[in-house]
Amino acid sequence: MKIDGVPYRTIWLAEDGWSVEVIDQTRLPHALDVTRLTILDDAIHAIAEMQVRGAPLIGAAAAYGICLALRADAGDAALDDACRRLRATRPTAVNLAWALGRMVDAVRQLGSNDRIDAAYGEAAAICDGDVAICKAIGAHGLALIRRARDGKGDLQPINILTHCNAGWLATVDWGTALAPVYAAHDSGLKIHVWVDETRPRNQGSALTAWELGKHGVPHTVIADNAGGHLMQRGEVDFVITGTDRTAANGDVANKIGTYLKALAAFDNGVPFYVALPGPTIDWAAKSGAVIPIEERDGREVTHVTGLDDSGKAVEIRITPEGSKAANPAFDVTPAKLITGLITERGICDANGEGLLALYPDRGAPE
Amino acid sequence: MKIDGVPYRTIWLAEDGWSVEVIDQTRLPHALDVTRLTILDDAIHAIAEMQVRGAPLIGAAAAYGICLALRADAGDAALDDACRRLRATRPTAVNLAWALGRMVDAVRQLGSNDRIDAAYGEAAAICDGDVAICKAIGAHGLALIRRARDGKGDLQPINILTHCNAGWLATVDWGTALAPVYAAHDSGLKIHVWVDETRPRNQGSALTAWELGKHGVPHTVIADNAGGHLMQRGEVDFVITGTDRTAANGDVANKIGTYLKALAAFDNGVPFYVALPGPTIDWAAKSGAVIPIEERDGREVTHVTGLDDSGKAVEIRITPEGSKAANPAFDVTPAKLITGLITERGICDANGEGLLALYPDRGAPE
Repeated sequence: MKIDGVPYRTIWLAEDGWSVEVIDQTRLPHALDVTRLTILDDAIHAIAEMQVRGAPLIGAAAAYGICLALRADAGDAALDDACRRLRATRPTAVNLAWALGRMVDAVRQLGSNDRIDAAYGEAAAICDGDVAICKAIGAHGLALIRRARDGKGDLQPINILTHCNAGWLATVDWGTALAPVYAAHDSGLKIHVWVDETRPRNQGSALTAWELGKHGVPHTVIADNAGGHLMQRGEVDFVITGTDRTAANGDVANKIGTYLKALAAFDNGVPFYVALPGPTIDWAAKSGAVIPIEERDGREVTHVTGLDDSGKAVEIRITPEGSKAANPAFDVTPAKLITGLITERGICDANGEGLLALYPDRGAPE
Repeated sequence: MKIDGVPYRTIWLAEDGWSVEVIDQTRLPHALDVTRLTILDDAIHAIAEMQVRGAPLIGAAAAYGICLALRADAGDAALDDACRRLRATRPTAVNLAWALGRMVDAVRQLGSNDRIDAAYGEAAAICDGDVAICKAIGAHGLALIRRARDGKGDLQPINILTHCNAGWLATVDWGTALAPVYAAHDSGLKIHVWVDETRPRNQGSALTAWELGKHGVPHTVIADNAGGHLMQRGEVDFVITGTDRTAANGDVANKIGTYLKALAAFDNGVPFYVALPGPTIDWAAKSGAVIPIEERDGREVTHVTGLDDSGKAVEIRITPEGSKAANPAFDVTPAKLITGLITERGICDANGEGLLALYPDRGAPE
């Protein structure tokens, strides 16, 4: 999507043709910094420290991490080691394992000399595939938005609430949850997004608000606590979130707090959609109960980063000295609370039958 | 309760016998500052700027505001004007109007010369009454905690989740939601509190964590998003919150986000209690739908205050320039989601029959 009118992706090959550049998302919304990844350790660091985040983008970055690893050593042991280390960076997003599987399949049978070219080709295909998937999710979601508009008229905006960042910054381009929003906005529909700030890392206020603003989409940041009240007051037409892993029964793991919004949507009759690319489905996970939930450092709760009044980035502590914090990063929203899953192949019910009807081949979406 | 071993109240008469001292809660948790109120404007400022907050404490501060107003002018016009201005400071808490009503009743029939003494007497009675009420809430809630302990054994702590600050800082002493916690802790029960940080003003991480820590109660700060996940995992034995206004049908208005926790508790079979003093009941409000919800400045969402690494209090902006924010301060939790109301007169069902059984006199609790 666009930043002040200039089209961007979140990850791309540098002009040298081999190193990889990414937007450093830990610096947003206050600075647009591009970071160059030249070795495997750079890719691992970028994923673990969340310079890149979002399930689809984590997969793309891991794919390029394999490319960089093979440049240093294209042997089997190095390949296996790179996969192991990349897989250990983040436990919840399933796209990471999926992308690594694709990379290994693409290079394993080749001799060392051919592996690097094949790896770069596969990583580029993963990125282009993600863009195509997200664009298709946008088209399917746009149909939902048009129907909501038809029920409401042209004068009032359609109010969509989203949690965390499942925008283009979470993918290679377009986003998952926000792809329908961009499709609607670009086609001239009047739309307004309620942006959950998404504590503790503030991906909503830092990333979603930033990317919507830069593309020109009207939006309002709210505390995570506010969404239920807005639904009670009829100020939310529907909710769309992303997901880091979808179980085969339609349960979804997504950023901590998603479950609370799904409960409120259900209680108020507000449609609750989850947008996901096929690679986010974990067919081996029978339900959300088996999805591992990442526990992150409590410091993300006790400390906050932002700009002081001189424009300098500062980290502050908001809790009393001596109070500890817990920080589960994801929760599981049970399928019963989900109105539908928006995929690149269309919209389905959040259950095994719905998913299998769209993916009879079970997880080979391209 | 105690701060590092020293007993405190939140509001008290200064040594001069007429000016009023309060803990400035906008400086917590990083500094314990006492502010002196000497004129009506000081009291109005303290309530509006949330140096004092919490429904019971707002009532107590308003009562002393009337005392200070009468010292300057004890005539009828000045009394009415002081009531009007104090009532306009915060719209949601009903204790404010209740305390002002008591003050007016206590002085209206008196001549100007007698009004000041009578006002100070009534304000002191409101404060002492609040302490007695909160202590009684603690005793009734303690019985619930003992029952939960009996079902669980002595080795594991009872895990109580609370939202916002309904501790002693929200009252004159003891608190409402936290009174049972202090009663349990002081009687030697093993207890642990999950403290919702309570965005956007962080009353949980700033006030609840601070007062629990200073009194020595084990606690863990969590993002508001995390409570549902903890309940899904069985890590919450029950929830206790306060309320700013309770409707006659048992609906409660409380800090924004309370509704989301009530939904999650209901979905997971976790008991959800609301602790309240009788003056918090608005018998004229047939349901929560008629309770006015305060909209506060969006700056509370876009900016956060804390300590930088040199220990200086700094305000930072966390949102992108140009992104606006909305900030509803309360939401309404429907009675159907509430397991019970813990009052100074005992525990009742959250409905009209339950409340009337405890308050057949409808709202004259002392």
